[in-house]
Amino acid sequence: MRQSTLFTKTRKEAPKDEVSKNAELLIRAGFINKEMAGVYSYLPLGLRTLNKIMEIIRREMESIGGQETLLTTLQAPEVWKKSGRWDDKVVDVWFKTKLLNETEVGLANTHEEALTQLLKSHISSHKDLPIYPYQFQTKFRNELRSKSGLMRAREFIMKDLYSFSKSEEEFRAFYEECAAAYIRIFGVLGIGDRTYRTFASGGSFSKYSDEFQTVSEAGEDIIYVSKEKNIAINKEVYNDEVLADLKISKDELEEKKAIEVGNIFPLSTKFSDALGLTYKDEDGSQKPIVMGSYGIGPGRVMGTIAEILSDEKGLVWPETIAPYDIHLIEISNVNEDVKKEAERLYTTLSESGVEVLYDDREVRAGEKFAESDLIGIPIRIIVSEKTLAEGKYERVMRKDGAADMVNESALLSQT
Amino acid sequence: MRQSTLFTKTRKEAPKDEVSKNAELLIRAGFINKEMAGVYSYLPLGLRTLNKIMEIIRREMESIGGQETLLTTLQAPEVWKKSGRWDDKVVDVWFKTKLLNETEVGLANTHEEALTQLLKSHISSHKDLPIYPYQFQTKFRNELRSKSGLMRAREFIMKDLYSFSKSEEEFRAFYEECAAAYIRIFGVLGIGDRTYRTFASGGSFSKYSDEFQTVSEAGEDIIYVSKEKNIAINKEVYNDEVLADLKISKDELEEKKAIEVGNIFPLSTKFSDALGLTYKDEDGSQKPIVMGSYGIGPGRVMGTIAEILSDEKGLVWPETIAPYDIHLIEISNVNEDVKKEAERLYTTLSESGVEVLYDDREVRAGEKFAESDLIGIPIRIIVSEKTLAEGKYERVMRKDGAADMVNESALLSQT
Repeated sequence: MRQSTLFTKTRKEAPKDEVSKNAELLIRAGFINKEMAGVYSYLPLGLRTLNKIMEIIRREMESIGGQETLLTTLQAPEVWKKSGRWDDKVVDVWFKTKLLNETEVGLANTHEEALTQLLKSHISSHKDLPIYPYQFQTKFRNELRSKSGLMRAREFIMKDLYSFSKSEEEFRAFYEECAAAYIRIFGVLGIGDRTYRTFASGGSFSKYSDEFQTVSEAGEDIIYVSKEKNIAINKEVYNDEVLADLKISKDELEEKKAIEVGNIFPLSTKFSDALGLTYKDEDGSQKPIVMGSYGIGPGRVMGTIAEILSDEKGLVWPETIAPYDIHLIEISNVNEDVKKEAERLYTTLSESGVEVLYDDREVRAGEKFAESDLIGIPIRIIVSEKTLAEGKYERVMRKDGAADMVNESALLSQT
Repeated sequence: MRQSTLFTKTRKEAPKDEVSKNAELLIRAGFINKEMAGVYSYLPLGLRTLNKIMEIIRREMESIGGQETLLTTLQAPEVWKKSGRWDDKVVDVWFKTKLLNETEVGLANTHEEALTQLLKSHISSHKDLPIYPYQFQTKFRNELRSKSGLMRAREFIMKDLYSFSKSEEEFRAFYEECAAAYIRIFGVLGIGDRTYRTFASGGSFSKYSDEFQTVSEAGEDIIYVSKEKNIAINKEVYNDEVLADLKISKDELEEKKAIEVGNIFPLSTKFSDALGLTYKDEDGSQKPIVMGSYGIGPGRVMGTIAEILSDEKGLVWPETIAPYDIHLIEISNVNEDVKKEAERLYTTLSESGVEVLYDDREVRAGEKFAESDLIGIPIRIIVSEKTLAEGKYERVMRKDGAADMVNESALLSQT
């Protein structure tokens, strides 16, 4: 992509009403746009990173048997009334609207009810189970306050998988498989070293659920972490009973602020009972289906990474989710040979499948470098009179500023 | 994909309240689920086809300079009031809802206002133009009636591109480029031969817009078609003035029902004026930006293809958008050798990158064939005792039932 044609511009200041660091940086770098509190559009650079995060999640969900679907935003009240979650007093984040004939409909904040209802047309026998439908779908939650940027949005894309199993045992085996997939996902995303599987409240139908909490000063949750045992406990269930269950003492735990980047949740037969989703077992008896739900918000993950991996100069993307692999910058100073060499390198890299953002603009070098730091692509390659004289390119790593001179073949083999 | 693990099932009957042929077939084949009138979920097979349609459109939009973004559903009233389109009397398909603090917000039915407002932070100079942001985004339209399946949905994904140009001339050149891209898209989608660029009303700021209309008895529009000249006129502008403009006589035109699968629309400076989006020209003067909008609904395209390319046995997908390339069916009759050969072929084809739906279920041959006809994958490959004896496979084309015997290398080279 030629930066001269990229329609977004970086800016020195974020909107005055933006108080979160992640949104401020992402807006300044041209990744997102604030439409209103808690509602953000994705611009080309931001959408590239969002898509890469989703693709990493998708790959892992497919590897554990997930089947991708796409449910709807508009929700009919009937099914939600069966589970008791239509009432605004029970679910306090509903957005509701009306059809022209005055029928009330809701905007989905989650999809247990809709999917359970849908599966009644597809599941009847023990041979049909287990199954793991999932989706990347926009959720709407009418949050009273929304000041944490991408971390607590009113409209956001969520990866939600739901498991439908024949027994508690079959459910639990998948639950652990999905927990392992989540650990792999956060590893690939570059936040594995500070993300903990965290004991949290199981709600009314299970003792515990599991959250995946990333340690950050910007977090809205408090967790108690054991680095050594690689687990954590959410403050909401931090009591003597849990400590005894986990055979861990208070001395081993450290209090930390953290961001909930994922959660997995046993649902037992709450929704299958409420909506009448059963299966016929081998012995001919009708049995309820044991469910679980498994969420990750790709946008929240993006906000979390913007929050914790950035520095005073701007964003610092892990290479797995950077919008481009290389930020190619030409400092031609009207030297046609430099310009030509930069163009040639851009073409060669692009044709080899390297994703390059090429700053071909007529702009001062200092400005190009500052913008490049703000955008945060992992590798910067500079073509200048100096590098041309040496027959190499200057390579600067965004993460730590390490710089060296490389030739073309080294560049092509690295990426 | 092994059909034994695919969680959707085909069914003999669609829901009784479904009156459109496209939705009836797509529901029966397990591609979509009806949530309420005009609101459909995509199931795994349907999502695969939808994604292929979107990828075909995306490729063409990128080829004409499109830059992909993702705007939001929730819309603040302020910007829409500037263009005069917030009022329900002006736009009669609004869904509106409220934040917890009682602020009214809308669900986007289109994005001219939001994008024009957004670009005020990114566009200021003639050097920043022209640009072509686009997206695949869910639109909400509160239709009074919604009985045409995917063809008139209340919630649907739309590809909407918006052009921002320095002059009417620059705009018009892109408009024609996009029209040509649309023609290519409908060609690749397999409906090019019956899709016509159609003169339609330009609204208040242009004499004409262009619709892309696919001839079908299920269409809600009436058009007048000249096959010979490869153009059409929408009934809404079918008058002597238009005929004179196009130098065409009534005798050359045939009245047809048609489905609007795409439209491109000159917007002049209506929205840039209303929202104050200008650019500084080379001479230092501030000028308004000339806009256009370009829509295709991938879901409506899917419905259209389901409607017009299907037959009495079920769906018939063009190979470019079929959920899988090959429907592999084993008729083992408990013959282990047949089963083994089918498994081997499934693995070989999958590893070569061929997308295979493999019917490995223990189900009668007749039932497998009937379901395969309903699902509509272009090529069916049968492994049976008979084919095993011949050392070949039976290949049946869904489109016309043509059957022959092929060996593995022919299969691999074909797809």
